[in-house]
Amino acid sequence: MTYCVGLLLDDGIVMLSDSRTNAGVDSISTFGKMHAWQKDGDRALVLTTAGNLSLSQSVVTLLKDGFADEDGKACDLMQATSMFEAAGMVGAAIREVARRDGEGLKEQGVEPNLSMLLGGQIGNRPHELYLLYYAGNFIKATEDTPFLQIGEIKYGKPILDRVITPATPLVQAAKCALVSMDSTLRSNISVGLPLDLAILPKGALKFALKKRITDQEPYFASIRGLWGEGLRKVFQTIPDPDWGV
Amino acid sequence: MTYCVGLLLDDGIVMLSDSRTNAGVDSISTFGKMHAWQKDGDRALVLTTAGNLSLSQSVVTLLKDGFADEDGKACDLMQATSMFEAAGMVGAAIREVARRDGEGLKEQGVEPNLSMLLGGQIGNRPHELYLLYYAGNFIKATEDTPFLQIGEIKYGKPILDRVITPATPLVQAAKCALVSMDSTLRSNISVGLPLDLAILPKGALKFALKKRITDQEPYFASIRGLWGEGLRKVFQTIPDPDWGV
Repeated sequence: MTYCVGLLLDDGIVMLSDSRTNAGVDSISTFGKMHAWQKDGDRALVLTTAGNLSLSQSVVTLLKDGFADEDGKACDLMQATSMFEAAGMVGAAIREVARRDGEGLKEQGVEPNLSMLLGGQIGNRPHELYLLYYAGNFIKATEDTPFLQIGEIKYGKPILDRVITPATPLVQAAKCALVSMDSTLRSNISVGLPLDLAILPKGALKFALKKRITDQEPYFASIRGLWGEGLRKVFQTIPDPDWGV
Repeated sequence: MTYCVGLLLDDGIVMLSDSRTNAGVDSISTFGKMHAWQKDGDRALVLTTAGNLSLSQSVVTLLKDGFADEDGKACDLMQATSMFEAAGMVGAAIREVARRDGEGLKEQGVEPNLSMLLGGQIGNRPHELYLLYYAGNFIKATEDTPFLQIGEIKYGKPILDRVITPATPLVQAAKCALVSMDSTLRSNISVGLPLDLAILPKGALKFALKKRITDQEPYFASIRGLWGEGLRKVFQTIPDPDWGV
């Protein structure tokens, strides 16, 4: 399983992913699920993946090497002129891999699944965040829904629902993503460290931070302790019901 | 969808369920999912249900009216001599309904699904909490895992993971169940008010509380406000990362 979250803020984009891959509980591995494309001052894009690892690795390889879509058009994220066009290229890569491997998986009784988050900014176009599905179609985060999640999304959603608005500053959004990840790690063993975190300020066309967070990272360790402790404290401060029990 | 949680504590049992039923987003209704059997000083049992409403209603009707299991043995929760025997009766009722309606549902392309929580105490036997599956089989809560959930379980699990131990007092456990429900209500529109709450102290053989909680209930409204506000405060007290972003 996987948990990835992307946040689209007035100030830029924050992306966070875990790195656990499992094929059954006795086959657990670490594979980074975050991939970046950057040319300083021109563009910065970041892609995170959930679902079948063989499918997502193939999609990323197509995108890194370049490929031709269904219409024979060359696809290269470093040449896309907008995030919308970039999302279209990722969708085309997903369909190409689905065409090649999807039926074979189904024949083996494995339902192919794949979803991706793509965030970034190209030139003077707006910074955008997309969620792509296995059919290669995609949706875009908006002011009304400033975050998108893939994988094991439920444990970490309540804190995002409560804290994140488009006006949330980048560092606080990163902190919120880490708290959301912590809740997921705590409740689902199939999501695991290390994490990959990327922060892309609006207009910078360059990541302000791309960081791998291991269990040795003191800030994340402190969040885990402070958040758990804080939750228990808030819980204690809520008065008990006066129901005569 | 549904969210029900049961807590097995040293001091007794707490059960909480929502009441929303939906067949698509344009067909939403309110049906209580909590059913009780009580004879003061002899026994108190409470059952909550998740899954297909036609199946769960049929199971509850069989259990209320009495029925004969596969071996022709009469099943009556008011006659069961232990919670283990009572769980067996609920399992037999599930299998009876599955036998009658399961295939018909499958032919219509509806995968039958049903799960139930059964908590209670009979005579001088221990108080126990069971989770029953569609096959009629069941598991029991233990000291290591003092709570069980059915339905939309993920949003509300992190707070239970952090707060509940067998030593948690009954009122605090009820408060925690309400916070867990609040997180679920906040993040999933298919879980809804009113709620049904039951508190059964160990050895009492009588519910200390059986209460319907509507949106007019001031205590639950105060929890919702205080918890959301408390979460945001804890979030603010966690220092921002010192990553130079």
